[in-house]
Amino acid sequence: MAQQPIEYADASPEVRAVYDDIKQSRNVPDVNNFWKYLARDPATLKRTWESVKEVMGPGAFDPLIKEMIYIAVSVTNGCGYCIASHTAAARKAGMTDAMFGEVMAITGMANETNRLANGYRVPIDAAFEK
Amino acid sequence: MAQQPIEYADASPEVRAVYDDIKQSRNVPDVNNFWKYLARDPATLKRTWESVKEVMGPGAFDPLIKEMIYIAVSVTNGCGYCIASHTAAARKAGMTDAMFGEVMAITGMANETNRLANGYRVPIDAAFEK
Amino acid sequence: MAQQPIEYADASPEVRAVYDDIKQSRNVPDVNNFWKYLARDPATLKRTWESVKEVMGPGAFDPLIKEMIYIAVSVTNGCGYCIASHTAAARKAGMTDAMFGEVMAITGMANETNRLANGYRVPIDAAFEK
Amino acid sequence: MAQQPIEYADASPEVRAVYDDIKQSRNVPDVNNFWKYLARDPATLKRTWESVKEVMGPGAFDPLIKEMIYIAVSVTNGCGYCIASHTAAARKAGMTDAMFGEVMAITGMANETNRLANGYRVPIDAAFEK
Amino acid sequence: MAQQPIEYADASPEVRAVYDDIKQSRNVPDVNNFWKYLARDPATLKRTWESVKEVMGPGAFDPLIKEMIYIAVSVTNGCGYCIASHTAAARKAGMTDAMFGEVMAITGMANETNRLANGYRVPIDAAFEK
Amino acid sequence: MAQQPIEYADASPEVRAVYDDIKQSRNVPDVNNFWKYLARDPATLKRTWESVKEVMGPGAFDPLIKEMIYIAVSVTNGCGYCIASHTAAARKAGMTDAMFGEVMAITGMANETNRLANGYRVPIDAAFEK
Repeated sequence: MAQQPIEYADASPEVRAVYDDIKQSRNVPDVNNFWKYLARDPATLKRTWESVKEVMGPGAFDPLIKEMIYIAVSVTNGCGYCIASHTAAARKAGMTDAMFGEVMAITGMANETNRLANGYRVPIDAAFEK
Repeated sequence: MAQQPIEYADASPEVRAVYDDIKQSRNVPDVNNFWKYLARDPATLKRTWESVKEVMGPGAFDPLIKEMIYIAVSVTNGCGYCIASHTAAARKAGMTDAMFGEVMAITGMANETNRLANGYRVPIDAAFEK
Repeated sequence: MAQQPIEYADASPEVRAVYDDIKQSRNVPDVNNFWKYLARDPATLKRTWESVKEVMGPGAFDPLIKEMIYIAVSVTNGCGYCIASHTAAARKAGMTDAMFGEVMAITGMANETNRLANGYRVPIDAAFEK
Repeated sequence: MAQQPIEYADASPEVRAVYDDIKQSRNVPDVNNFWKYLARDPATLKRTWESVKEVMGPGAFDPLIKEMIYIAVSVTNGCGYCIASHTAAARKAGMTDAMFGEVMAITGMANETNRLANGYRVPIDAAFEK
Repeated sequence: MAQQPIEYADASPEVRAVYDDIKQSRNVPDVNNFWKYLARDPATLKRTWESVKEVMGPGAFDPLIKEMIYIAVSVTNGCGYCIASHTAAARKAGMTDAMFGEVMAITGMANETNRLANGYRVPIDAAFEK
Repeated sequence: MAQQPIEYADASPEVRAVYDDIKQSRNVPDVNNFWKYLARDPATLKRTWESVKEVMGPGAFDPLIKEMIYIAVSVTNGCGYCIASHTAAARKAGMTDAMFGEVMAITGMANETNRLANGYRVPIDAAFEK
């Protein structure tokens, strides 16, 4: 049987505490499916949420840039759920069509040149190590 | 025999024209190994350089952000050359240690949650499609 | 046209012989879609089944552990069919929710630290080679 | 300039606290390069260590099995550092040559069948969802 | 909101020019979804089409062989859309069932041996460099 | 300790039989490192060699085309050993510089468009399924 999500009404106090923190931190009425499925393993739910909150929280880059990087990785890995959820989050954070197009263009190009560098077996330039 | 790089002195006029454009556009005295190895296939050298120049040129994001996205993809794919070259380019464009640490943290976290979403087979939320 | 599966009733004697061996070895009434699609290429069907039977047969680890490793790889690669089929096989072999959660947690963490090691360009410790 | 490791003698109190916990938890005289490089970003060092300690700690599987899963993922991703470090850790935890051979065989086979399932576009069996 | 395709009737002159060139070059009545979605970013649409046209055009290999290589990469990356579209293109170019089976067999085997080489940490033979 | 290769002089009769078959089939004086490392697990050595021999043997494509596909996959996965060994094998089978350049160009382009299709979430055209 495929995994089943855990809704708030059916959640343990431990899981509810995480859901509550997500809802408050993000100012949303409900948590996404990702968290409802992770809730099958409360320890992983808690650890993952705390890590995501820390990593995606205030720092050197604003939230929009952080979501762009998340999208670039998710597109590279071909994670359908992650592409959909982080594209939605980026839109909410102000991503324009031009920005989305630019992230896609860079992600595509990087995936191409990564393979050209692999295939031509290019040695690292001494200048990069200075 | 492993591929060999083509130095400026040994390059055809066609290859030199690309090298000259790279040197002028980037204001550098010589091109990186990546281009010297690609030069074995002048058509790919030209096409790749023109694409990179267009994609990494002026747009919605500044050059530093673009390099960060390039790094995130290269780290996800494990391309050693690309990690070294784009980290060097990002440093040159102003990347601080805090910025580098943040890109690594996001890249690592995205690679983790991409797999959690895969493994728990999380269906896409209807809200993401609105 | 998308590939079509080959059902037992329509299979050649060569394909039936593989189907029969799978059904007998696994004590199941029918083979999974994976084999029905591979049957388009009888040589690959036969070779793949014989390899899987050998690799997943009795050895240093019990079948449940072997399925866990299969799941970890399939989740890393994002193969939807393989995640579903090997999760079902692992459940049948006795995988509990706690075990599934643990495999997911390790798989997620490994995917994260693999990228941190790539990005920070960590050199291999001399101690690992002794 | 490539990243540089931070040795214990040069570490901040914050970083030393993590190093001390790693050394005590694992009963080792020094931490691996991985941690010395991550130490450039003390928040990521701390978060990653705490996550690894939780995920790789006591649970449904013994430490050896956990290392095996880590190896399978690292080999799939081609992370040279991670393969070397987790193979060393697994050896320390009792991995025999036969066990290593078996993990490699399963990892190789899973990577092969993942692609066969992709290429033949195999639909998920209804039975897997029950 | 998920991305939306741009049909010919709604396309800008810039996008129509690319669509027209694709339709003429490939002698087809309409372009595939791939181009209709890329059209959201006219610069990427134009650059990608021109690159694909150059790379997949006349060269050392005939079009069928080129499509086979495209399939092998797409299957390795698990890109569902790309597997479907390039398999359709290869069929059109004359790919037989035997050829498809052979590409799948090689792709599966390469993905397996790539991981065995990673896991056993095999050093490159001196003979390969001569 | 890192894995060690097994030379012919030190090999068991079982391993020697595989080495002999490789040397005879390929008309070479010694086997590559890949086989010497795999020899640590004689069952995997034998199974892998027999599979490779079958898959890379006479079929719908000539040996050179088969090596090209192997290279495309290995470059996509970033397997350094495999890129070196299959490039050497392809050179031996007659690969010209123009052919190598073309395989690299296609492999790079496919890796790029695979990501563009992922990111734009392009649905499969109905026409591909007919």
